[in-house]
Amino acid sequence: MNQPAQKPVAIKHALSVTRDADFAAWYQEVISEADMAEESGVRGCMVIKPWGYGIWERIQQVMDARIKDAGVSNCYFPLFIPLSYFAKEAEHVEGFAKEMAVVTHHRLVGDGKGGLVPDPEAKLEEPLVVRPTSETVIGAAMSRWVQSWRDLPLLTNQWANVVRWEMRTRMFLRTSEFLWQEGHTAHADRADAMAETLRALEMYRSFAEDVLAMPVIAGEKPENERFPGAVATYSIEAMMQDGKALQAGTSHYLGTGFAEAAGIRYQDKEGAQQHCHTTSWGVSTRMIGGVIMTHGDDDGLRVPPAIAPHQIVILPMLRDDDGDEALLAYCEDLRRALAAQTALGERTRVLLDKRPGKATQKRWAWVKKGVPLILEIGGRDAAGGQVSVLRRDRLWREDGKVNFAGQARDEFLATASAELESIQSSLHAEATTKRDAQIERGVTTLEGLAEFFADAKRYPGWVELGWSRPTGAALEAVVQKLKALKLTIRNTPMNGPAPAGTCPFTGDAVVETIYVARAY
Amino acid sequence: MNQPAQKPVAIKHALSVTRDADFAAWYQEVISEADMAEESGVRGCMVIKPWGYGIWERIQQVMDARIKDAGVSNCYFPLFIPLSYFAKEAEHVEGFAKEMAVVTHHRLVGDGKGGLVPDPEAKLEEPLVVRPTSETVIGAAMSRWVQSWRDLPLLTNQWANVVRWEMRTRMFLRTSEFLWQEGHTAHADRADAMAETLRALEMYRSFAEDVLAMPVIAGEKPENERFPGAVATYSIEAMMQDGKALQAGTSHYLGTGFAEAAGIRYQDKEGAQQHCHTTSWGVSTRMIGGVIMTHGDDDGLRVPPAIAPHQIVILPMLRDDDGDEALLAYCEDLRRALAAQTALGERTRVLLDKRPGKATQKRWAWVKKGVPLILEIGGRDAAGGQVSVLRRDRLWREDGKVNFAGQARDEFLATASAELESIQSSLHAEATTKRDAQIERGVTTLEGLAEFFADAKRYPGWVELGWSRPTGAALEAVVQKLKALKLTIRNTPMNGPAPAGTCPFTGDAVVETIYVARAY
Repeated sequence: MNQPAQKPVAIKHALSVTRDADFAAWYQEVISEADMAEESGVRGCMVIKPWGYGIWERIQQVMDARIKDAGVSNCYFPLFIPLSYFAKEAEHVEGFAKEMAVVTHHRLVGDGKGGLVPDPEAKLEEPLVVRPTSETVIGAAMSRWVQSWRDLPLLTNQWANVVRWEMRTRMFLRTSEFLWQEGHTAHADRADAMAETLRALEMYRSFAEDVLAMPVIAGEKPENERFPGAVATYSIEAMMQDGKALQAGTSHYLGTGFAEAAGIRYQDKEGAQQHCHTTSWGVSTRMIGGVIMTHGDDDGLRVPPAIAPHQIVILPMLRDDDGDEALLAYCEDLRRALAAQTALGERTRVLLDKRPGKATQKRWAWVKKGVPLILEIGGRDAAGGQVSVLRRDRLWREDGKVNFAGQARDEFLATASAELESIQSSLHAEATTKRDAQIERGVTTLEGLAEFFADAKRYPGWVELGWSRPTGAALEAVVQKLKALKLTIRNTPMNGPAPAGTCPFTGDAVVETIYVARAY
Repeated sequence: MNQPAQKPVAIKHALSVTRDADFAAWYQEVISEADMAEESGVRGCMVIKPWGYGIWERIQQVMDARIKDAGVSNCYFPLFIPLSYFAKEAEHVEGFAKEMAVVTHHRLVGDGKGGLVPDPEAKLEEPLVVRPTSETVIGAAMSRWVQSWRDLPLLTNQWANVVRWEMRTRMFLRTSEFLWQEGHTAHADRADAMAETLRALEMYRSFAEDVLAMPVIAGEKPENERFPGAVATYSIEAMMQDGKALQAGTSHYLGTGFAEAAGIRYQDKEGAQQHCHTTSWGVSTRMIGGVIMTHGDDDGLRVPPAIAPHQIVILPMLRDDDGDEALLAYCEDLRRALAAQTALGERTRVLLDKRPGKATQKRWAWVKKGVPLILEIGGRDAAGGQVSVLRRDRLWREDGKVNFAGQARDEFLATASAELESIQSSLHAEATTKRDAQIERGVTTLEGLAEFFADAKRYPGWVELGWSRPTGAALEAVVQKLKALKLTIRNTPMNGPAPAGTCPFTGDAVVETIYVARAY
C-alpha cells in the first residue's frame, strides 16, 4: 500500500543523533530515550530502570529455563570472598586481575564533625573482596560437596551481582557492578567437562540467535584471551552495527587447576582419589547492550518480541469525552483477546496504556522503547471494528509517513501471533544480512589488514582469515601487531571453514580460521 | 484404614533431635538434613543450596507476580552507597544503625610475601557502603525522576542482596548477607502513601497465610520498634512452634523525612513545590526460616505445596533387572499425566527421581526435604495399575508404620490436585490451631506477665493484652520492664479487639490490643 516515493523524503527521526553521525552518542541516547537505565551517581554503577530491567527479567526467565532443562541447579553463594581465597588463586594464575572492591571495615562511626567514617575499631582481621566472579568460593563449597564419583557431575548456577572495578564505564557494556548468571560445574574427567563447556556455549549461541535475534559466532578464544587459569575459553561474538565486535557470553574449561587450588577431589570407582575437572560459564546484562547495538535504529530501540516486556501496546486515542468509555471497553476487549493468545511459545504480553497524555507523545515513547507492535485505536476504529497497526521494524513508509496500517480487528487477532514471530525472524535476518555484509574475506596479509581498518572514523567490520595458531611468544608478537592497529582476535569458529594458504602473521601454513576486529 | 493402636508406639523419627528436646539444634538439623543451606566459611554468610534456593525461587515468583499486579515496577539500584548519603541520614535519624560493610579500596596488590593486601595506592576518596537497605540511593533516583504530580505515585521494587553486619548469625533468620525484595514508593500525600503502606502489609499477610500457610498477625509496631526515620512501621508476626515470635515482613510509612533528605519534590496541580510522602516494604529469605519453624516436624521440613519446588516426587523401586524398563515407563507416564494437571492455580510440579540408590534411602531424603506427596512405585504396582502414596503431613500411622496408602493409579490422578490443596490448607489449619492455643488472654498485670513467661526453658507463647499506648519516656519505661523479662511488644493487630480495662504498665485506660512475646 506504500506510495512510490517521487524523490527521497527526509524523515524526521525520533532521536537527535543518528548511528551514522556518532554511534557512541546514539547508544547513550537510545538508553536514555527508551528509559532503560541511567548513571546512578555512584561511580561506575548504573540504575537499571523498569524497561531495561524488564528486558533483563525476560532474558533471565528464558535462560533460566534452559539452564534448568540442562539439569543445572540454582544456588546462592556469598557476595564476600576472603582475601586469602584470592591469594591462593593469584599464586597459580598468571594475569590475575586485581581491580576489585575491598571491604576492610564493618562499622561506621561519627567523625566528630557531623560526618561518618569507617570505625578504626571495626577493622576486619581479613579483608573481604566483593566477588568479581565466584570460582574460588564455589570451589570451596564443591570441595565439601563432592566425595565420590556418584556426586558427579555437580552442576550449579547462580544469578548474582558481581563487581569489577572499571576505570572507563559504559552502561550495560562495562559497569563496575553488573548482573549475570555464572554456571559452575565439576566433572569426573576431561571429556565430560569439555562436553559441558560446549553445551553451555551452544546454549548461549542458540539463545542469542533465537531469543535475542542476534547472530553470533561461537568459537574458541585465542590463548591470550583465555580466562586466567582456564585451559580453554569459548565465546559468542556478535557484530554491532558500527562493525565492532561484542563478546556476549563465555564458557571456560578450567582443567583441574581450580580443583587443585580448592581441593575438589573425588573417589573414583576403583577407590583412587582424583581431582575434578571444572567449568564455568556466564552471560550478563551486557547482552542488553548487544541488543541495543544490534537492533536499535535512528528512532530508538527495537526489542525482539521474545524478550519484549510488552510485545503489543494498545494506545486508545482518548478525547476526554463521552466516547471514551466505549473506546476503552473496545480496547480492553482487544487486550483480553490478545493476552489469551500464544506467540513464540508463550502467552502474548500486551499492555493497554490508559495513562493520560497525548496519544502521539505516547506513541513516540513506545517507538523509542522499541515495542514490536503498537496499536492506535480511535473512536471510529472502535465503532467500525478496526485497528491501526504499526510494526516497529517497519516504522516508515517511503513517503516519509509513519507506517500505520488499518486492519479489521478480527483479521488482526488472527494474525497477531504470526506478526510477532515475523518481527522476531525479520530482526534476526536483518542483523545477519548486515553482519555478513561486513565480514571481509579477501584479506591475506598484515598490510591488507592495516589498510582495511585504516579509516580511524569508521569500523568496517570483521576480517575472517586463516592463521597458523601460534602460541607463546609467537602469539604475543601477533597480539602486539594487532594491538598497534587497535585490533583483537575474536575467536576461531566452532565449525569454521578449513582454510588453506599462508599465515599472514607467521608465514607458516594456515590451520584454522579466526575473526579479527575492533571490539567493545 | 489405620489400625487402632493397642498401646503407644515409639516412632523412630528421621531427625536425631526433636523440637521438644532442643528447638535450636532441631532447627539447624532440619536445614542440614533437608540440604537447604550451610555455613559458607565466610563470616556470617551462608550458601543457599538447591532445595533452599528452590523454595526462595517459588517465594519470588509468587510474590513478584503480586507486586507487579499492584502496578509496581522492578528496577535495579547500585550495591554501593557513598558514605555521604548515610551521613545525611544519620543527621536526621536517631537510632541510625552503623554496622555495615565498608569498601575502602579498589585494588589488591602483592604484599611481597606471596600474599595480597588492599593496595594503599587505590584507596577510595569516599568510602562506599554495601547497601543495608536502599532508601538513600533510591531516594536520590526518585529525586531525579519525580518532577510533577503527574509522575506520582512512583512505585518501584527491587530483588537484591543486602548486608548488615551481624554479630550472632543464624541461617535464614539472621545472616550478614541476605536476599530480599524492597519496595520503595513516592506519593503526593499522606493518604496515598498510607494506603500503599497498608496495601503492602496486606499483600504480605495474605501471602504468608495463603502461600506459606503461615498464620500471621498484621499490625503496627510500637513507636520504639519503628524503622529509624519512619512515621509508622507495620509488620506481620508469626508464631514459631517454640512459642517465640518471628517478624516476617515489614511495611513503613516514612512521612516526608526521607523525601526532605533526598530532595524528592513535585509540583502540585496548583504549581506549588511539595515534598513527597514515601514508603518502603520488604520481605527476605528470613521467611524460609519461618516456614521451617512453622511447619517442620521431628522428621524434617514440611513444605507447603504452593512453595514446594517439587510437589510430588515419584520413586520407582528399581531392581536392576529386566523389570526396570516397564516400571520406568509406567512412572514416566504417571509423571507426564501429573505434570499436565493444575493444582493451586499452577501447573503441578512433579519429579521422577530416577537416580541410582536404595528407594528407602531416597524416600527418607525426600521426607526430610518435606515434599508434600511421595509416590513409591514397585514392579507389582506398575503391573497392577497401582500407586503407593505418602502424604508428608500424615507421615505415621498409629501403629508406628509409615503411612503409605495403596491406590489405583486413575483414582490417584483424579484426586492429586485436591490432595495437594488439602495439604496446603491442612498445614495452615494445623499451624493456626497451634498458634491460637498458645495465645494467652488472661494476663492483665505485669506480675502475671512475669509469671506466665517464668519458665526459662520453655516459651509458652504470646500474651494478648490491652494497653494505653504510652509514648516517649513512658513507653521507654515499659520497654525496659519487658526487656528485663526478655520480652518485646510485637504489634497492635490491624483489626484487633477493642479492649477495656486498665493498662498493666501505666495504670491508664486501655486503648488498644498488643501482643507481647519473646522473639527471634
